[in-house]
Amino acid sequence: MSNFGVLNLCLVNPYEPSFREARSAVGASQLLANARVVPTVAQAVADCTLVVGTTAVGSREVRHPVKGLQGAAPLIRKRLATGRVALLFGSEKFGLSNEDLSHCDWLLRIPTREQHRSMNLGQAVAVCLYELARSSRHVAIPETGQPATAGDIDRVAALLLEALDASGSLKSRSAARTEEKLRRLMRRHHLTAEDAKFWLGMFSQIVWKLRGSQ
Amino acid sequence: MSNFGVLNLCLVNPYEPSFREARSAVGASQLLANARVVPTVAQAVADCTLVVGTTAVGSREVRHPVKGLQGAAPLIRKRLATGRVALLFGSEKFGLSNEDLSHCDWLLRIPTREQHRSMNLGQAVAVCLYELARSSRHVAIPETGQPATAGDIDRVAALLLEALDASGSLKSRSAARTEEKLRRLMRRHHLTAEDAKFWLGMFSQIVWKLRGSQ
Repeated sequence: MSNFGVLNLCLVNPYEPSFREARSAVGASQLLANARVVPTVAQAVADCTLVVGTTAVGSREVRHPVKGLQGAAPLIRKRLATGRVALLFGSEKFGLSNEDLSHCDWLLRIPTREQHRSMNLGQAVAVCLYELARSSRHVAIPETGQPATAGDIDRVAALLLEALDASGSLKSRSAARTEEKLRRLMRRHHLTAEDAKFWLGMFSQIVWKLRGSQ
Repeated sequence: MSNFGVLNLCLVNPYEPSFREARSAVGASQLLANARVVPTVAQAVADCTLVVGTTAVGSREVRHPVKGLQGAAPLIRKRLATGRVALLFGSEKFGLSNEDLSHCDWLLRIPTREQHRSMNLGQAVAVCLYELARSSRHVAIPETGQPATAGDIDRVAALLLEALDASGSLKSRSAARTEEKLRRLMRRHHLTAEDAKFWLGMFSQIVWKLRGSQ
């Protein structure tokens, strides 16, 4: 990260002994000393307008759009011009969980050979950041409005879930899965900050009416 | 190396205990098992028609030509079409010695920020091989899902409008404008056919509940 000038590390619920050791090691970087530690992915990405997950698997196995690193980089760089972007890496053993993925707008994959897709975590990070830092002209794609933050999107998804619950169509058994699904859906919709405001207003009213009728 | 399909590893005079341990580790790759071990750089590169060293320092400090990784990659790929190429990495602590460098045709440097030039060895290898494997045209990975039809989107927008109306937040004066706004919003969200089905199911339930309560 430091090699490529990416200085904001945030760890979600890290394994404490390892993290403490890394942080207190001789020559540990300022970057590590400054790392934020939070308990959930939602908190880690709350101030980001784009959340990109990383995966070793292809688009058939996940329900998110998957872009190759080379195609992903210009999109990320473009978004970085106006807001914060999170690049989300899973644990080396298990990768990102479905819950983690539900916070992502889309996924990127480092092109590797089919026979050996899974990469070492540190190497995957280095390759991604190298590609992002790699100087190549990128084509500007015009976009309408300021993108919504991950926090906005979480609030919309939560309110949608409440509307579903109030309308009696939410089975408590599958509530967590539905919430994940809603979050994934809203992220895929590329809301602007204004869209999020509109959705929040609309669903507040619907929920209020649904709750009032009980 | 294995991720990017570079399968010939040759170690020059490795530290035996570490190498033995790595080689006999659970899950150690075929690549490691097949690695050649030789006592000198000269032997390692004897069958190569191009030997490229890697360095963290600039061209002022070494007597070799230094190329950036991005410029170096096409030259290496070109040579690979007709012969073997060695990419020579030094030890993590000391890099390549002057004796090592004397075997090199030229050097490559991964562009990093000035304040942090020295890279982790495994990360440096991964970044170099990624750049070599990187195709000039990027492979499009298809996105998930069939896009929703305009009819699907209109149905979602209409049902949303009905939900707004049933929740009492729709002013009849602005109904037409709101419908337009909703349709525009849903179009901008790039729904898949499956998304549309999900929204329709959800809003049918909400509208049914809202209407039932009147």
